[in-house]
Amino acid sequence: MSVLITGVAGFVGTNLAQALLDKGLRVCGVDNLSRGTLQNMAALLKNPRFEFRQLEITEPGALLNACEHFAAHEAITECWHLAANSDIPAGVAEAAVDLKDTFMTTYVTLEVLKQLGIRKLAFASSSAIYGDHGSKALEEDLGPLLPISNYGAMKLASEAALSAAAETFLTNLWIFRFPNVIGVPATHGVMIDFVRKLKQTPNLLQVLGDGTQQKGYLHVEELIDAMLYIHRHATERRAIYNIGPADAGVTVQFIAEETVRVAQPTASIQYGEGNRGWVGDVPRFVYSIDKLKQLGWSPKLGSVQAVQKAIRQIVAQEQPA
Amino acid sequence: MSVLITGVAGFVGTNLAQALLDKGLRVCGVDNLSRGTLQNMAALLKNPRFEFRQLEITEPGALLNACEHFAAHEAITECWHLAANSDIPAGVAEAAVDLKDTFMTTYVTLEVLKQLGIRKLAFASSSAIYGDHGSKALEEDLGPLLPISNYGAMKLASEAALSAAAETFLTNLWIFRFPNVIGVPATHGVMIDFVRKLKQTPNLLQVLGDGTQQKGYLHVEELIDAMLYIHRHATERRAIYNIGPADAGVTVQFIAEETVRVAQPTASIQYGEGNRGWVGDVPRFVYSIDKLKQLGWSPKLGSVQAVQKAIRQIVAQEQPA
Repeated sequence: MSVLITGVAGFVGTNLAQALLDKGLRVCGVDNLSRGTLQNMAALLKNPRFEFRQLEITEPGALLNACEHFAAHEAITECWHLAANSDIPAGVAEAAVDLKDTFMTTYVTLEVLKQLGIRKLAFASSSAIYGDHGSKALEEDLGPLLPISNYGAMKLASEAALSAAAETFLTNLWIFRFPNVIGVPATHGVMIDFVRKLKQTPNLLQVLGDGTQQKGYLHVEELIDAMLYIHRHATERRAIYNIGPADAGVTVQFIAEETVRVAQPTASIQYGEGNRGWVGDVPRFVYSIDKLKQLGWSPKLGSVQAVQKAIRQIVAQEQPA
Repeated sequence: MSVLITGVAGFVGTNLAQALLDKGLRVCGVDNLSRGTLQNMAALLKNPRFEFRQLEITEPGALLNACEHFAAHEAITECWHLAANSDIPAGVAEAAVDLKDTFMTTYVTLEVLKQLGIRKLAFASSSAIYGDHGSKALEEDLGPLLPISNYGAMKLASEAALSAAAETFLTNLWIFRFPNVIGVPATHGVMIDFVRKLKQTPNLLQVLGDGTQQKGYLHVEELIDAMLYIHRHATERRAIYNIGPADAGVTVQFIAEETVRVAQPTASIQYGEGNRGWVGDVPRFVYSIDKLKQLGWSPKLGSVQAVQKAIRQIVAQEQPA
């Protein structure tokens, strides 16, 4: 069986590709390499069951051509659609970024799947589709959905387009609403920011905000495990699941202190003001994974252990070879 | 005060424009006249406080140019965004229709408002954003939102983009989730279809489906009244309200019989099979307007009276002058 992964060179994409290869599948991947890299895929590219094409999904015909090329070898039966802008502030500054990279990638992918008769799609959605609901637990049946970033808006727009497609040509749709995911190969996020800042100024870590912002974190290895679990066990035609840690998370202060401890134990930490990192960032949320637990999956690591593991991995990643 | 209405030449647009003119406002309207007509606007065009420009919102610069022209006279402070594809089956057949006419119109309108510093937006959303929830009452806080038509999907995508804009530059956002709305000037829908079919074949009305499909209907005069009421009284930054009749609605059979009674009392009625009119049509839903009632507004007409009134008006509209 051959599967297509869009955004395969990214943080989640490379981990997912490896997991699907490990299951014995053939994996065909596309990526525009705007944030993902060939280096991320070094191990994948050595695998004879992995094929890669660099392309812009939104360029007319690009994805269709690649898929026809992939399918010449063996038909593609399923798509894991991960391609998206992953720089939320960039999308807040300019709506066109998420329109193209987060929504139009979904729209074009759907059109190509329809044309090629690929009827199964798994999609990387986000907790950002909910918006800011304060202390209310974010469950899958919560409404109204009021995203506060263009990233969240275009993820929700993607969910909507996929839902309509599940009425016409898609037979199976899995929507995974991702939490904050950490691990390697890290491309962005607070941990790699801290590690890199400490390389620039080894004595001082300057933190955006007052450090009280609290979030739950899931390690990417557990995320992939949950995605494959839902894919195997969910029975709804449109299966929508939050994936996340089971706890209320850790503060930015904890991450700063842990990063300093591992990377530069002598550095001091300086905090800014306010507890919202940027416009479009939900400062604190309670993410419910009760539905996923009922399906039979729970994370093994809490946010604390996930953060500690990821920091060690990211510090190693950023060390000169 | 000057307000902008997109889709002003359509069924709801013309009624809204008249209501806002009646309140003493200056109304600037745009429409591509794909479905709306100059004839619909005959009375409006005689009003010195009404200005109209025909344009495609999605053509680069078209809406911005028109708004700069309108604003030269008096600044625009608010936009009522109604422009959208209104042919649901067309959008199911080809996703590009709703992408362009239902979603990209919203995206471009937002970009223009941002550029011109217009910070208030009222939006015509739809019950179609909910999808098919069977007998569960559709309340504003219901989730997950699983539209089954591209029209519903692109209305939800529009809501999402507007919600994100309310985090950056919009100070006020009103989202009205429309029910089935009837009245004149009718441009599409089951009643005008029946009236026109009876003109073609005065002895026989052929009905798509078995006639058991049941829906609630609101008269456009009440819809406009509710929109203005919510606009005046809602206090949330993102005010989302279902607007609809307070009852479970009437069947297609009732509409067919009423249309025959008014238009061609001697005609017989022939039904088809199945109770879903077309792909993407939600066959039956329970629409909750409890939130709107709590705000203090209730419809005066039930679905039965709204249908009877609209049929009389549509039969009159379709009579040769």
